[in-house]
Amino acid sequence: MLRNDQLAQWDRENFFHPSTHLAQHARGETSTRVIKTASGSYIEDRDGRRMLDAFAGLYCVNVGYGRQEIAEAIAEQAKELAYYHSYVGHGTEASITLSKMILDRAPSNMSKVYFGLSGSDANETNIKLIWYYNNILGRPEKKRIISRWRGYHGSGLVTGSLTGLELFHKKFDLPVEQVIHTEAPYYFRRDNLEQSEEQFVAHCVAELEALIEREGADTIAAFIGEPVLGTGGIVPPPAGYWTAIQAVLKKHDILLIADEVVTGFGRLGSMFGSDHYGLEADIITIAKGLTSAYAPLSGSIVSDKVWKVLEQGTDENGPIGHGWTYSAHPIGAAAGVANLKLLDDLNLVEKAGTTGAYLNKSMKEALGGHANVGDVRGEGLLCAVEFVKDRDDHSFFEASDKIGAQISAALLSQDAVIARAMPQGDILGFAPPFCLTHEEADTVVAATVRAVKAVLG
Amino acid sequence: MLRNDQLAQWDRENFFHPSTHLAQHARGETSTRVIKTASGSYIEDRDGRRMLDAFAGLYCVNVGYGRQEIAEAIAEQAKELAYYHSYVGHGTEASITLSKMILDRAPSNMSKVYFGLSGSDANETNIKLIWYYNNILGRPEKKRIISRWRGYHGSGLVTGSLTGLELFHKKFDLPVEQVIHTEAPYYFRRDNLEQSEEQFVAHCVAELEALIEREGADTIAAFIGEPVLGTGGIVPPPAGYWTAIQAVLKKHDILLIADEVVTGFGRLGSMFGSDHYGLEADIITIAKGLTSAYAPLSGSIVSDKVWKVLEQGTDENGPIGHGWTYSAHPIGAAAGVANLKLLDDLNLVEKAGTTGAYLNKSMKEALGGHANVGDVRGEGLLCAVEFVKDRDDHSFFEASDKIGAQISAALLSQDAVIARAMPQGDILGFAPPFCLTHEEADTVVAATVRAVKAVLG
Ligand SMILES: Cc1ncc(COP(=O)(O)O)c(C=O)c1O
Ligand SMILES: Cc1ncc(COP(=O)(O)O)c(C=O)c1O
Repeated sequence: MLRNDQLAQWDRENFFHPSTHLAQHARGETSTRVIKTASGSYIEDRDGRRMLDAFAGLYCVNVGYGRQEIAEAIAEQAKELAYYHSYVGHGTEASITLSKMILDRAPSNMSKVYFGLSGSDANETNIKLIWYYNNILGRPEKKRIISRWRGYHGSGLVTGSLTGLELFHKKFDLPVEQVIHTEAPYYFRRDNLEQSEEQFVAHCVAELEALIEREGADTIAAFIGEPVLGTGGIVPPPAGYWTAIQAVLKKHDILLIADEVVTGFGRLGSMFGSDHYGLEADIITIAKGLTSAYAPLSGSIVSDKVWKVLEQGTDENGPIGHGWTYSAHPIGAAAGVANLKLLDDLNLVEKAGTTGAYLNKSMKEALGGHANVGDVRGEGLLCAVEFVKDRDDHSFFEASDKIGAQISAALLSQDAVIARAMPQGDILGFAPPFCLTHEEADTVVAATVRAVKAVLG
Repeated sequence: MLRNDQLAQWDRENFFHPSTHLAQHARGETSTRVIKTASGSYIEDRDGRRMLDAFAGLYCVNVGYGRQEIAEAIAEQAKELAYYHSYVGHGTEASITLSKMILDRAPSNMSKVYFGLSGSDANETNIKLIWYYNNILGRPEKKRIISRWRGYHGSGLVTGSLTGLELFHKKFDLPVEQVIHTEAPYYFRRDNLEQSEEQFVAHCVAELEALIEREGADTIAAFIGEPVLGTGGIVPPPAGYWTAIQAVLKKHDILLIADEVVTGFGRLGSMFGSDHYGLEADIITIAKGLTSAYAPLSGSIVSDKVWKVLEQGTDENGPIGHGWTYSAHPIGAAAGVANLKLLDDLNLVEKAGTTGAYLNKSMKEALGGHANVGDVRGEGLLCAVEFVKDRDDHSFFEASDKIGAQISAALLSQDAVIARAMPQGDILGFAPPFCLTHEEADTVVAATVRAVKAVLG
């Protein structure tokens, strides 16, 4: 199957790819795909094959590929000062400016930003900070974190535990005991099909209340959630969900972490998902959209309420014992500054909203009536098509049939369009760059219709 | 104390710095240090103050600052393709080439490299892989990790637990229960001053044996250690330590993780610390020296022995559920390729060895006789001076006297030389770039003598 050239051979012999079937890849049974260049919504491999990337990498290249403004900012920073650390009050013009730009855009109760590299490490930081917070407040028992089934919050030991997907737990002994899960706000997959959306929200709230009751509110520090479930299936919350959940958290003095790694900086057509749904988070996780992936950078935006306690902590205990060598790396910071400027200059957040509405509407019109399409849903530039065995009795395919993966493969091979088969369930996900044109959206929809037809008839 | 300009104000109001006294910094009681440019062994702040950085950032800018070859490689990659992911067999020419270059340089039993961003996340990956490994081998109880007191392996929840330093545990509820600690191989700080180096090694081995006996070898998966203790005090191992420790691990089928984040790619004058001390690791952690910090990139180099089991695991269970969005980020990969080329072209690994020997010798000659200097030690381009209250009775200063921090501050203010007060004990650490000249080494030593004199007389 593979062209047995040098790069492919080096790859097979040396490169341990994430989320890959390691044995098949090493044996040469799966392709090495070498990506060479990219521009706008398109990527191109070394064989000159152009593909329309309707997933923006891993929903991260929000401003689109090939933005020379960001490349230039990275180049200049690399030439002037590729690295200095940010420990003990050190910074660079780029990192300080970016901290200001982030706080200018974040909800008004936010106070400071800690910089990391990945969404995972930012969530790791969040938990560390929350444990510290409760220790300073003299509540050493209040430590466990509630996450939702189908949430995605990272791939570390604790952050992979927050993630509520089987693939990330299996054979890794996860979740660790400090993390507990509650119901996913996934109306389409509700157990009781009789429930209205409102009743389903009441059910989610009751489940959360019961969990807190069972474990004891004094053992629970925080609740983490993505404004819109992402990797778990691209699922916008049912109406009223966040308001109802937040009321429960307030009552039990449980902090809210809004994981905005996907939704932060515009994907929903609002600067933050928290604005979009009225979340009053205590900590906000950011990554992907912060730099549009041009360089690794993540962040934990900390609210006034949490920050005050952290200050008290260092007054009582001295400098905080937390840091990554590459916190606030100058290259990432320079990319972030240029990226946020570009978002503004090209009005890309608003564009994500309007193009997203167009894509979602077109997809629904094109596929909503198909016998094997159970749901077409989305918000902003997130869109998902969920396949079912039978629409009428709401039954699903066997996982082993891999319908989602088959359709994603057909889409790529037939029309060179990239969408992602989400890891749990037969769900085809779309999260294109914000620069997607209406014509490109039409191409994506038409190609999806063809791929669905090829696989399901 | 602060110049109340805009950057300083933005910094105070928005930027959460790692390892910083948060309250003092926010109140403006500590400086905002904005670094602007750098070249060779020198960094320069926005006020035009040049400083000789004898710690190479956080012992990471190994090839020195301002290398235009690396900046160019980053710039070109940013222009051509700043990002695509490496999931499911994807890669770029840079990331595949780098995987090959790493394996060409690594010990011969190594098989594949998984790319991360930070040293912390690489160690997180290592533990995940080792848990998976023992699950595949049907040993679900064999999971705990032994680390050493004074080891430094990261700042996450589990990796911060591996770290054996109080500052990183205090108020964070660390270490987590999966991590247990054994004696630091720190001959100078041995309890029993009568012990010879050989006897002390026997004592370390006995402590390890006793720990394994107590916990049960069938519950212990791995042992992690830096070839030379770094952040814990820059402590080369006593003679025979690694041979003796490895014999114990072999006997109990406990894997060895060599954390070469500091020692990898030349700092000891050998490509890897594992070569230097004859370690046969099962996994090697790399980060800092891989890119000389020009862009964030880390890695877990996995041996044949471990890789074979991972392959078996994916044959049995499908794709491995582990990945970071920015695994093998193209910018980091391009920086890594250029950096490793530069190491070769300028013969920098050998240079680290010879310059390191010169620095260590000069430091010992200059300070070895001082009444408050208990130890001058090092290996390659790592050097430490440890201060004592009284050399004759081997007594230490109170931690609250902060002698190490005072001397480091004097060094910076008097002579604009940066060395690091290591976090536990009064230890001044040096880890300069490999391009340090002998004249610069002389400057560092002379300035250190003056700083010691200023603080201790
Ligand atoms: C919501 C969310 N949080 C966290 C992460 C983890 O980010 P990373 O892969 O950079 O560690 C992701 C990645 O997809 C994500 O979607
Ligand atoms: C030996 C060692 N391992 C791991 C780390 C963690 O690396 P990072 O700060 O990139 O997470 C460090 C950082 O100093 C280190 O010295």
